[in-house]
Amino acid sequence: MSAQAPCPETPECSPSGMHDLAQRLFPICRSITGDGVRQTIRILQEYLPMLRMVEVPTGTQCFDWQVPEEWNISEAQLIAPNGRVIADFAVNNLHVVSYSEPVDLELSLEELQPHLHSEPNLPEAIPYITAYYKRNWGFCITHQVRQNLPQGQYRAIIRSTLKKGHLTYGELIIPGSTDREVLLSTYICHPSLANNEISGPVVTTFLARYLQALPDRRCTYRIIFIPETIGAIVYLSQHLEHLKSHVIAGFVLSCVGDDRAYSYLESRLGNTLADKVAQHVLKHLQPDYVRYSYLKRGSDERQFCWPGVDLPVCSVMRTRYGSYPEYHTSLDDLTVVTESGLQGALHVLRHCMDCLEQTLTYTTTVLCEPQLMRRQLYPTIGRKGIAAGSRVLVDIMAYSDGQHDLIDIANILGRPAWELFQAFETLHAHQLLSLPEAPPPTLAAA
Amino acid sequence: MSAQAPCPETPECSPSGMHDLAQRLFPICRSITGDGVRQTIRILQEYLPMLRMVEVPTGTQCFDWQVPEEWNISEAQLIAPNGRVIADFAVNNLHVVSYSEPVDLELSLEELQPHLHSEPNLPEAIPYITAYYKRNWGFCITHQVRQNLPQGQYRAIIRSTLKKGHLTYGELIIPGSTDREVLLSTYICHPSLANNEISGPVVTTFLARYLQALPDRRCTYRIIFIPETIGAIVYLSQHLEHLKSHVIAGFVLSCVGDDRAYSYLESRLGNTLADKVAQHVLKHLQPDYVRYSYLKRGSDERQFCWPGVDLPVCSVMRTRYGSYPEYHTSLDDLTVVTESGLQGALHVLRHCMDCLEQTLTYTTTVLCEPQLMRRQLYPTIGRKGIAAGSRVLVDIMAYSDGQHDLIDIANILGRPAWELFQAFETLHAHQLLSLPEAPPPTLAAA
Amino acid sequence: MSAQAPCPETPECSPSGMHDLAQRLFPICRSITGDGVRQTIRILQEYLPMLRMVEVPTGTQCFDWQVPEEWNISEAQLIAPNGRVIADFAVNNLHVVSYSEPVDLELSLEELQPHLHSEPNLPEAIPYITAYYKRNWGFCITHQVRQNLPQGQYRAIIRSTLKKGHLTYGELIIPGSTDREVLLSTYICHPSLANNEISGPVVTTFLARYLQALPDRRCTYRIIFIPETIGAIVYLSQHLEHLKSHVIAGFVLSCVGDDRAYSYLESRLGNTLADKVAQHVLKHLQPDYVRYSYLKRGSDERQFCWPGVDLPVCSVMRTRYGSYPEYHTSLDDLTVVTESGLQGALHVLRHCMDCLEQTLTYTTTVLCEPQLMRRQLYPTIGRKGIAAGSRVLVDIMAYSDGQHDLIDIANILGRPAWELFQAFETLHAHQLLSLPEAPPPTLAAA
Repeated sequence: MSAQAPCPETPECSPSGMHDLAQRLFPICRSITGDGVRQTIRILQEYLPMLRMVEVPTGTQCFDWQVPEEWNISEAQLIAPNGRVIADFAVNNLHVVSYSEPVDLELSLEELQPHLHSEPNLPEAIPYITAYYKRNWGFCITHQVRQNLPQGQYRAIIRSTLKKGHLTYGELIIPGSTDREVLLSTYICHPSLANNEISGPVVTTFLARYLQALPDRRCTYRIIFIPETIGAIVYLSQHLEHLKSHVIAGFVLSCVGDDRAYSYLESRLGNTLADKVAQHVLKHLQPDYVRYSYLKRGSDERQFCWPGVDLPVCSVMRTRYGSYPEYHTSLDDLTVVTESGLQGALHVLRHCMDCLEQTLTYTTTVLCEPQLMRRQLYPTIGRKGIAAGSRVLVDIMAYSDGQHDLIDIANILGRPAWELFQAFETLHAHQLLSLPEAPPPTLAAA
Repeated sequence: MSAQAPCPETPECSPSGMHDLAQRLFPICRSITGDGVRQTIRILQEYLPMLRMVEVPTGTQCFDWQVPEEWNISEAQLIAPNGRVIADFAVNNLHVVSYSEPVDLELSLEELQPHLHSEPNLPEAIPYITAYYKRNWGFCITHQVRQNLPQGQYRAIIRSTLKKGHLTYGELIIPGSTDREVLLSTYICHPSLANNEISGPVVTTFLARYLQALPDRRCTYRIIFIPETIGAIVYLSQHLEHLKSHVIAGFVLSCVGDDRAYSYLESRLGNTLADKVAQHVLKHLQPDYVRYSYLKRGSDERQFCWPGVDLPVCSVMRTRYGSYPEYHTSLDDLTVVTESGLQGALHVLRHCMDCLEQTLTYTTTVLCEPQLMRRQLYPTIGRKGIAAGSRVLVDIMAYSDGQHDLIDIANILGRPAWELFQAFETLHAHQLLSLPEAPPPTLAAA
Repeated sequence: MSAQAPCPETPECSPSGMHDLAQRLFPICRSITGDGVRQTIRILQEYLPMLRMVEVPTGTQCFDWQVPEEWNISEAQLIAPNGRVIADFAVNNLHVVSYSEPVDLELSLEELQPHLHSEPNLPEAIPYITAYYKRNWGFCITHQVRQNLPQGQYRAIIRSTLKKGHLTYGELIIPGSTDREVLLSTYICHPSLANNEISGPVVTTFLARYLQALPDRRCTYRIIFIPETIGAIVYLSQHLEHLKSHVIAGFVLSCVGDDRAYSYLESRLGNTLADKVAQHVLKHLQPDYVRYSYLKRGSDERQFCWPGVDLPVCSVMRTRYGSYPEYHTSLDDLTVVTESGLQGALHVLRHCMDCLEQTLTYTTTVLCEPQLMRRQLYPTIGRKGIAAGSRVLVDIMAYSDGQHDLIDIANILGRPAWELFQAFETLHAHQLLSLPEAPPPTLAAA
């Protein structure tokens, strides 16, 4: 990667068009399995042709879990005694509890009530409800509608199927010159929810395009579009050893589309390279960002950071799940997610990627300060102390002791890492810095 | 121990009656040796039949010290020229300097003065003075009396003996299912002093009864009633290797009877399990407690924490020795010590014992979050994030990485440990947590 | 060294006379090589007869550098068209750019300008300018003069030589009973500059005399008077392995003569014994001292702390280079440096030396508190807690666990180390403390 242009705004990685993609993905009815997931991945493949669709059969054991039956749904209606359609899947796919079994029943309001879900605090919102692991069915409606339901016989029709099939996920490997891997994970299992679903795959897709467009890459990028929880568990159960030995940092991309805040949710112990990079980037780009402890976790860092899994994964978000009122309701729609909201998240994450590309631990090659004048790196006339323009070079070398990586040194110097990329490159080019630690095999070849 | 009822208020361990015991013990003239110590232990044996009385002969070498001659006293009087009895051992045993040699002398006021002790700042108090290791004698009187002593010939009579005998201490071992030991140490060497003496053995006795009444115990409790300093040195010299290899935590019980404050005096480096437990319990039960550095030490933590001894011992107190005006004078009487003062200390110390019983370092047995629904530990309908009722279970597992013990996890979660005992038990019962570290032999058998 | 008198004010080390020495050294035209350095060392030899002058030939390779040609200068004048002498080396040696090549030229004002240096912000000051490593020449004048220079032909005469010769430095080894070395480094390469040159060798000289006068020494002192930067690099390149295996602490002495502030510039990582001692001494003697990060470095700690060199070196200064307006101009003269300014620095540095002499890591020899009474270290009558006069003895032993050195213990006790020297000596004399770590060979013989 060129240090001079860490964030090229080339057509390939232009953020314009993110909201367009969000609009295409929003209407699809996704769940943790089923054709909605496949349809989503197929659209993403238009942007990322190398994105591979992977199918894992129902019943596959994954640690303490099994891949559940595949769920698909074609239509669903809840019809009031007066014939009015109270809830119609065709109007909003949130109306049906995800993984509802097929039903075609007549029942009284009293019998219906246990199958109804609404949100009293947001009376105009349809809540998002799931019932993945125990057969059940239900309808989600606004609390306003629910409070005015007349007595009488209702008809509940859900045309769904629950049968052996597959769990589907997408995986894209963008190779670099080393096998140091960066893991990016986002989820594609929610129906029409915007910030807490669509923003994730959209920003991940454009971030992947940015990474693909880099002229060269030190890191290899492993980018997965998975159903939340069960998808992460499936993926980890099938790749754990590889991930543990290769991943140097990872990020869960979720809630990256609104324009209200920036936030960071630390890894379990808060001490990974991912945390260090996220904190560094946000401190310089968005100093008012909100920091959440791992106790506030809610997405796949739950699995990635689990004891024994212990991948170095944190989250960089706009407004965190659970911290905005529309969360998990029909109000989390494409008015919450904005082009500038998506762009802001992409901007921060691109800087995180840039930092991961550049963050190595160097060692000075010369004992004592080198003679910089004969390398044209120092003025020939001496005045007061270390010449200002050369100071950053000398400071970088002074802390390049094999113990401090590039981010550490940027933190010591109180400067954004990206302002130092060029200086590190210069010193490396003059052979004043070397990479002392035995590099991974492919790095040596690079 | 049942996690459901960490602090049962059963008759066996009811704190009522603590002040009654204090009243029985208060009048006895104790010193670092002698019959007062034996008499005290015999009364405690009524409450703790398994308490063993141990005699160590005069002259026994214990590290840098030797067990001194045994001191006993039957009567003592200081009589003024006019025949008035200025100080009478029968009235208050503080009137005689502890370890005074026998005398029967006539002497002038001027000759007497070096043998008189009073406290100008507390003119109505008789000070507590000792002269254990160099033959001497003396009387302690109020400063008021001292200032009005007439000239003339005084008679000083002390009927005491100083001869080969024994140092006496009490020891009670309450066995648990493991040989992880908790050391409780209190002293029985002061004459009629209440907070800075009697409160210690009284609370220790009732705490021992609480521990004996537990339906089962993981820890073994080693409870010693010793003369301060020389008793601790004797005990350590005879048990050091055992203690160093078994004691996981210990507490010195002193000044645990007044009702004015709670305090904690840290171990030498402040970093032991005893410190962690004491800090945790006090933070939740008595957040205004006073914390003292080891520089403020004054009881047997002086010996227990000595370099090379290095037992994990701290002190939990009500008002610390030296921090209340009556300390080491006749004003430290049974009005300073109250039933509620004793109860408060017992309450805190029982929670410390409960924490020590429960504090183990667990490891999750499952990679990634386990499927809690099929264990009826998670709701089958999903709404927003981790279900609230299950959150504590998941959080406990998330930090059960073999590095954080139960108290660490309670601290991370910001909750009192005892609110988590049940959850740990539940997870252990479901085999979702295990005890990864090789347990001590007897623990494996338990 | 006698603990009773850590800072004897004997004639040998009396600070009076420091300003006299400064006045002798001030007028000499020093540079990084040349006769000015030799002349300076010869004067210092009057005070330190064992000071050895060392010559290193031009062309000697030292890490990334080579010893440059030797520069000497006899006279220089810049003469205006009207015959007026604008700048005369005989009047102020700052008028000539250090290392100016010989010239004898007539040139117009326009041609002259690139060779003129002045300081617009200090219009009455002659700036100090160097051009060591690329042939050049120039004159330094006040900005006032420069602004009034008439048009016309100027004559520039510099009678200098640049040819093969030597770099000269001074070295004094003051042996102690062990080979634990303390490095003191100061520079002698600036012409007539007072605080940022002369103060360093003057205070170093008097500090060396103080050390020589000590009745005995545990440490060996290596004291070097070197040209800044190239001198340090030369010295390190020839002594690195010895220094790395022997130096326990070191100080760069620079800017130690004014009377405005005390300051401390930490070593690269701020965690060496030198840092610990400097912080301790300044905290107690000059609590308002200014602390600078290594990022503010500007003298030979640049070389001593370089990665791979990593000597434990920091700086204790009065007002730091770059932090006072006169720095590197003719205004940094002997009015900036005062006798009391020099004395204050010497006072602080002597305490640092005293601490280094005394700072060892002891271990208590006795398990549990020793019996101090029979050693006459404790009163025989006991009153409240540990007797006040003996408390410091007991506290010292309580932390003498082989992990805390004397300064650590002084910090724990909140007292200046020198107030504890006597107590450590007493305990050592009573064999209550020992030095557990295998001492260096010569220490064992001492």
